[in-house]
Amino acid sequence: MVGYSDDKDAVLKRMRRVEGQVRGITRMVESETYCIDVLTQISAATRALQAVAMELLGEHLSHCVKQAVEDGGPDGDAKIAEARAAIERLVRS
Amino acid sequence: MVGYSDDKDAVLKRMRRVEGQVRGITRMVESETYCIDVLTQISAATRALQAVAMELLGEHLSHCVKQAVEDGGPDGDAKIAEARAAIERLVRS
Amino acid sequence: MVGYSDDKDAVLKRMRRVEGQVRGITRMVESETYCIDVLTQISAATRALQAVAMELLGEHLSHCVKQAVEDGGPDGDAKIAEARAAIERLVRS
Amino acid sequence: MVGYSDDKDAVLKRMRRVEGQVRGITRMVESETYCIDVLTQISAATRALQAVAMELLGEHLSHCVKQAVEDGGPDGDAKIAEARAAIERLVRS
Repeated sequence: MVGYSDDKDAVLKRMRRVEGQVRGITRMVESETYCIDVLTQISAATRALQAVAMELLGEHLSHCVKQAVEDGGPDGDAKIAEARAAIERLVRS
Repeated sequence: MVGYSDDKDAVLKRMRRVEGQVRGITRMVESETYCIDVLTQISAATRALQAVAMELLGEHLSHCVKQAVEDGGPDGDAKIAEARAAIERLVRS
Repeated sequence: MVGYSDDKDAVLKRMRRVEGQVRGITRMVESETYCIDVLTQISAATRALQAVAMELLGEHLSHCVKQAVEDGGPDGDAKIAEARAAIERLVRS
Repeated sequence: MVGYSDDKDAVLKRMRRVEGQVRGITRMVESETYCIDVLTQISAATRALQAVAMELLGEHLSHCVKQAVEDGGPDGDAKIAEARAAIERLVRS
């Protein structure tokens, strides 16, 4: 079980939209679209990717981390340490 | 002419790598890969997109904005105002 | 008890350094320091603030959220929802 | 002359507000304010610092970079390269 099991269809739908956005950006570059218009689409795709990340991270906290803490033992602390590292990567990316 | 004309092949190569990364993320979600591993790949794809944006923006300043300022007249200021707005979108995304 | 109780002295030390950085930026503006040098210091102060935020958020997960989940009941879910919202604000700022 | 000369008073006013925000965060930590409330204020201070950075960078492009390009010679390209590096630092911070 992964944290996003209940959300999987919605996450896949969002990811396919991001794929479409990214392919669209490649086509814009191929056809030499004006720089600023390409940048606007890159900003939009970046925001869409970050929104998926927020969803996955949130569901991970609500399910995987919560479950590990409820189960007791060292795995709860390990899952929290792992989530902290993932949050730092997201904030920096 | 666009600012990234000289760089077009390199930018396309980078964008195709980003496309591959994003498709890889979709497949990870389809096969229910562990949340944290998906997040790591989203962070990597986001950084790759931002790197393309930095390249396009930089070339836009070095070519399109520079040219408009050299040509004189109101177009230089318009191009600078447009670039400022694009930078704000990138910093916020 | 707050999540950063054990870390309080270290957090305060970091915040006093950020205060010094921010006052330094004000003085740079007062004395009309070259724009790019001011921007470099703003980037450094922003990174320092984000590092404090990462520390506080991490300790909050490791202590407050963990404790609420261990205690059982609806407060665990409420604390997780609150942390998710805080992470979104940090990623966007 | 610096790019923000005309804006200096407004920039100083904003920086003094950021100083107040940062001192407020230190006091919140001293009095052991709830973690999430401290994080909310750090997000606000970070956004305020980034807004000052956007203003300084924008005025730098509109004045210093523009002037160097208009003057002709290698200094225009040097100023653009320097601005590109500053933008990268801001996007990453």
